[in-house]
Amino acid sequence: MSDRLATRLTRRYGLALPVVLAPMALAAGGALAGACARGGALGLVGGGYGDLDWTRREYTLARQLAGSGALGCGFITWKLDQDASALDWLLDQPADQLPRAVMLSFGDPRPYAARIARAGIDLICQVQRLQQLPQAIEAGATVVVAQGAEAGGHGMNALNGRATLSFVPEVADWLATHAPDTLLLAAGGIADGRTLAAALMLGADGALVGSRLWATRESLAAEGAKRQATQTNGDGTARSGIFDILRRKNWPAPYDFRAIRNDLHRRLELQLDSLRAHPEAARAEYEAAVAAGDYSAAHATVGEAVGLINDCPPAQAVLQRMADQARVRLS
Amino acid sequence: MSDRLATRLTRRYGLALPVVLAPMALAAGGALAGACARGGALGLVGGGYGDLDWTRREYTLARQLAGSGALGCGFITWKLDQDASALDWLLDQPADQLPRAVMLSFGDPRPYAARIARAGIDLICQVQRLQQLPQAIEAGATVVVAQGAEAGGHGMNALNGRATLSFVPEVADWLATHAPDTLLLAAGGIADGRTLAAALMLGADGALVGSRLWATRESLAAEGAKRQATQTNGDGTARSGIFDILRRKNWPAPYDFRAIRNDLHRRLELQLDSLRAHPEAARAEYEAAVAAGDYSAAHATVGEAVGLINDCPPAQAVLQRMADQARVRLS
Repeated sequence: MSDRLATRLTRRYGLALPVVLAPMALAAGGALAGACARGGALGLVGGGYGDLDWTRREYTLARQLAGSGALGCGFITWKLDQDASALDWLLDQPADQLPRAVMLSFGDPRPYAARIARAGIDLICQVQRLQQLPQAIEAGATVVVAQGAEAGGHGMNALNGRATLSFVPEVADWLATHAPDTLLLAAGGIADGRTLAAALMLGADGALVGSRLWATRESLAAEGAKRQATQTNGDGTARSGIFDILRRKNWPAPYDFRAIRNDLHRRLELQLDSLRAHPEAARAEYEAAVAAGDYSAAHATVGEAVGLINDCPPAQAVLQRMADQARVRLS
Repeated sequence: MSDRLATRLTRRYGLALPVVLAPMALAAGGALAGACARGGALGLVGGGYGDLDWTRREYTLARQLAGSGALGCGFITWKLDQDASALDWLLDQPADQLPRAVMLSFGDPRPYAARIARAGIDLICQVQRLQQLPQAIEAGATVVVAQGAEAGGHGMNALNGRATLSFVPEVADWLATHAPDTLLLAAGGIADGRTLAAALMLGADGALVGSRLWATRESLAAEGAKRQATQTNGDGTARSGIFDILRRKNWPAPYDFRAIRNDLHRRLELQLDSLRAHPEAARAEYEAAVAAGDYSAAHATVGEAVGLINDCPPAQAVLQRMADQARVRLS
């Protein structure tokens, strides 16, 4: 009997399961991306804000650890508009060290598409709304990621952001009409074999997995943050602009950020206008907490799927569990 | 080969597919509930705000149309706290005319549990957060509905509401530990065979379906609202308190309401504080639009799954399509 986890994604990148590591800034470093690639997923290094030194170091480490596994790198598009040196460095690698794919999120991917294509690298574009799809296809995306607002980290605002369950089949229908050769990944809420199997039912070729792989031994997330996440259920996150204000991240509308709704977040929800006008005191409190590893104020970047996460094993064990459970569901 | 759509839900109520009609106030009348029951789903009349005359008329009609199909009725719990006469009427029916189930949402179900149990009727409790589960189990719920914030109509607020994809398996895990005989339905975002199959992968025994059955010939929703819905994609809804303010519905926190984000909604989003303080002018505009059937201001109550809805067929055709498509996915 054919493998129910074999999809266009696994065939294109030679994967053991249809999973891509989300390129989580500062968490998806070389150790995690390398472990995921070795474990049969596509490992995307979290180039994030585009820091050249960080990207160079972590991508190089990922290559050392990945064996023959598939690697890539992700960037925040609107940050590339300010400084694309990390992407430039990546595209200048020798042919045998180039990534298989570059993922771009949160901005217009078209200015970078030609350089990525010229290097023979696949472009993965993440969208949060249907209306962003034409831009991704115009950029020549090989893979589109449909990200629901339940995802951790940055995404689309709560008022009318999309949720994964109905967004993915709607994107699948759009692609079937407009770009049937484009692969589709589901992102947001996928953290075990059940949610992976559900993503395949929705018409996705696989899943982009963040929180579940964030909470692994190889992730660069702080130990205190990981510990808090394993003790938090899915009711305990929130999407807002609060942690971006505290971290001086100048994110453009309509993007905001999901993380654990800790004590500081709860307090600041009630005084958002004054936080925006006078952020200094809250920033000082936040920065002191980060330095002290105090997660009642420092943030832990996970999505609603944190309610399905109760441990912090090696990434390879997570991938194996997801594949095993999904195969049982789908058999 | 066994039917992949046979679940604890279909066995308990003798259904042809694991689908329950959401008891949508003013839309799920007797014609729609009866058609769903006849079509092999559990048809819940939308008792909603608990109007006795409406409930009596529509439930009686549903019974005439349902044949041997399974029927029930749903109520808004906090409205029952003010006036339970419609529930009282229902529970006083002769034994052979009693509903199979009563569904309670948005409030504490425990005060009504004993009367419902005494009549031999199943209690279905809808929850929007994990923290509401113990109350539902204490009330003796036979079925728990885990509702994601992508659902149309009332639900839990956007800041930290849950989305269906990760909420359902988290509830399934909780029930497996605390109440393994309790059935589980997924609600929010389920509108075709793909999303139904996904709900089963997540560990649900079936799905509560709103928007897709709202947009049917038998639904009591206004024709203009249905027409607008078939032309709106999933990006085009929003969750807020705006339409409740306009309709003078005094909903308690933290509940809010998802509908199509029409021109009036977009305008009022920018002036929420002044709308709350002085709603009169906007209410007059809204009421005139309702009277005129102008859906640039009157509301159409659907969820994000509206992006999967492009027509308005008879309910039985919708159910048949969902079952056929889900069986193909699951085979």
